[in-house]
Amino acid sequence: MTSTTEETAQNWLAKAKYEEVLGADSSHKTLFLLLSHPNGEQGILLANKTPFSEQQSVIEELLKSAKLKELSKNDIFGSYEIEIDKHLNVLKSQLIFPVNDRLIAKYRQEDKLVIRETPKLYQTVTKPYIEKFQLNLKWVYNCLEKVSEADKIVFEDDDKKDGFVLMQDIKWDGKTLENLYLLAIVHRHGLKSVRDLTGDDLPMLYSIRDKSLDAIHDKYGLAKDQVKCYFHYQPSFYHLHVHFINLKYDAPASTTMSAILLDDVINNLELNSQHYELSTLTFTRKKSDMLTELFQAANEL
Amino acid sequence: MTSTTEETAQNWLAKAKYEEVLGADSSHKTLFLLLSHPNGEQGILLANKTPFSEQQSVIEELLKSAKLKELSKNDIFGSYEIEIDKHLNVLKSQLIFPVNDRLIAKYRQEDKLVIRETPKLYQTVTKPYIEKFQLNLKWVYNCLEKVSEADKIVFEDDDKKDGFVLMQDIKWDGKTLENLYLLAIVHRHGLKSVRDLTGDDLPMLYSIRDKSLDAIHDKYGLAKDQVKCYFHYQPSFYHLHVHFINLKYDAPASTTMSAILLDDVINNLELNSQHYELSTLTFTRKKSDMLTELFQAANEL
Repeated sequence: MTSTTEETAQNWLAKAKYEEVLGADSSHKTLFLLLSHPNGEQGILLANKTPFSEQQSVIEELLKSAKLKELSKNDIFGSYEIEIDKHLNVLKSQLIFPVNDRLIAKYRQEDKLVIRETPKLYQTVTKPYIEKFQLNLKWVYNCLEKVSEADKIVFEDDDKKDGFVLMQDIKWDGKTLENLYLLAIVHRHGLKSVRDLTGDDLPMLYSIRDKSLDAIHDKYGLAKDQVKCYFHYQPSFYHLHVHFINLKYDAPASTTMSAILLDDVINNLELNSQHYELSTLTFTRKKSDMLTELFQAANEL
Repeated sequence: MTSTTEETAQNWLAKAKYEEVLGADSSHKTLFLLLSHPNGEQGILLANKTPFSEQQSVIEELLKSAKLKELSKNDIFGSYEIEIDKHLNVLKSQLIFPVNDRLIAKYRQEDKLVIRETPKLYQTVTKPYIEKFQLNLKWVYNCLEKVSEADKIVFEDDDKKDGFVLMQDIKWDGKTLENLYLLAIVHRHGLKSVRDLTGDDLPMLYSIRDKSLDAIHDKYGLAKDQVKCYFHYQPSFYHLHVHFINLKYDAPASTTMSAILLDDVINNLELNSQHYELSTLTFTRKKSDMLTELFQAANEL
């Protein structure tokens, strides 16, 4: 009898031994494990606690099955560990096997560190790094020219100097309003990041902010004061783009040292046209990242 | 026979009916429920999925009990729901009963909105609000004068103009390095927030940054490039202070529109001594918050 892929996975996991915690996140409640199988294969288990259901019937079932163990009690406040039926509390998981070293490295959590990029270090370290190693921007140009992903476009201002395309981000399903995630990608080529922006670019920035917020309101009914808009620094690709995200959504890399508000960029350029040419920008980077190593080689960390 | 407080809570919960979801956070996996009891009381259940244990024995038990249900399979990548033994997957919870309307309001999640505070709106709305409604700062002065919480002090520079006290934040247990959370509170009175800072305050800001990072390294062994330091805007109390936090810790309100990096403040004041007097500052605020209402009344939202 041929076994199903589910049985194969279950059997693989049953024989696998725990080898290493590749990563763990106590605030998002995830655990990445490296496993080894007697047959010599390695595998990775990505385990996530699931969000609570907000369905009344599921909540009622949860309350019914709850078994309390008191940890402490003070006046009206009691602290408990609660056991609930296991089918109400499954893990959302990926099991990947067999895996090679490259995949293992990808999932191994790595410490980050703070980098303070002075204008000089931008010129001598970051800019040469971008020019030498930046990923191919072909896919971005394909989006702008509607060769691909044209169905993801929510709005376009086709002005070649100040225009942009507003499109659904790949991380968004295009439906769940709570996670709304759009990217505004400028039509103009050659603007790598906020570092390249000057006061001359303010008309483009006003236009991106105001027209995108209008389009999001028109298309998704999300009010302008319910959207956060920011750049990443460093960005993941060096063609200028702005992230537009539901304020409610705790998106990855929306923290300080990763994100710079569009409103702050506008404010800073209004105060000083050369702000981003003259500023020290502070961001985080993985320890083994090539840019980190270049900064360390520049003996500035 | 007298019942234990655990039994009392278990019995209360068994009879309670689900009334309302007060709040839910799908990324941190929490659920706040309002419950009602036939005796007329109301209660609140705060339920949190627990972080995974990283102990080898617990991980091995988890792997052994894992029962896979395949959702999809593509090449080496399989996606599964996994059931595990319920004692490995308890909820960390608080049950509070009976509760009054004030407590219910406190735990009811509320939408936020984006506020753009121009220099004029700061002068006409925020500053009068602070002067009229700011909380009593007695507890801050008590800390600075070591009348209270002197055991929490990690470092002090007692200069009356540029000095500060670096102390363990109330949210931190003082031990768990992953969650390291300290506050640097300036000795000088009258500096309400970053809005009051000018280029003249740069010596104080350099001193806070450099001496605090040194003290954290000396006392806790955490390297300077492993710490993030930022102001909140708006802050929770209007006596100038800086948050120092382990870079690894995903602290509340460390996102853009809540936090402003100390390094960015220093950079901006170096470029323009009046930066924070002249800037529009963008932040989020709960919809029903008094400051939000004052902004709305000023007809500027």
